[in-house]
Amino acid sequence: MADVWEGWERRAKPPTLFRRFTFERYAQTREFLDALAAAGNACGLHPQNINFGTTYVNVTLEAADSSRLSPAEEAFARQIAALAQAQAGTGR
Amino acid sequence: MADVWEGWERRAKPPTLFRRFTFERYAQTREFLDALAAAGNACGLHPQNINFGTTYVNVTLEAADSSRLSPAEEAFARQIAALAQAQAGTGR
Repeated sequence: MADVWEGWERRAKPPTLFRRFTFERYAQTREFLDALAAAGNACGLHPQNINFGTTYVNVTLEAADSSRLSPAEEAFARQIAALAQAQAGTGR
Repeated sequence: MADVWEGWERRAKPPTLFRRFTFERYAQTREFLDALAAAGNACGLHPQNINFGTTYVNVTLEAADSSRLSPAEEAFARQIAALAQAQAGTGR
């Protein structure tokens, strides 16, 4: 029986991590965004997308390696969550 | 003939301005974002939403008054475009 997938190349979408953080006030949102940018510069990683308004920040991290998130990327995700918590942010 | 709209209140959606700016490098995107935040603090206005990745920033301004953008909001929009241009950003 012929392989129906012959000629096709399987490609996994790059794994991503997404998280929404909410804050009480714009000042906290701003502090978090600045801390996130500084942390990203320090480790050379930047979220694939950040979407924010005055009291929320949606963060999307995408694996550079298309098969899995690296330990550095996972550590960055943990650091981002800790930075949000430092601004009393609620991640959900 | 009865007015079929009696009892209804007409509400226009708040007018919004949307613009996408693109940059050559993350450093320029970052400079633009920082300048935008500083400009917003200076005039007390903040975009309703900012969506960015390493080389693009999508900005949405929403009128606080639901009927029209104020002169201050329009001036803020012009200032944002000028800040992007200062980072060689392309607004389209």
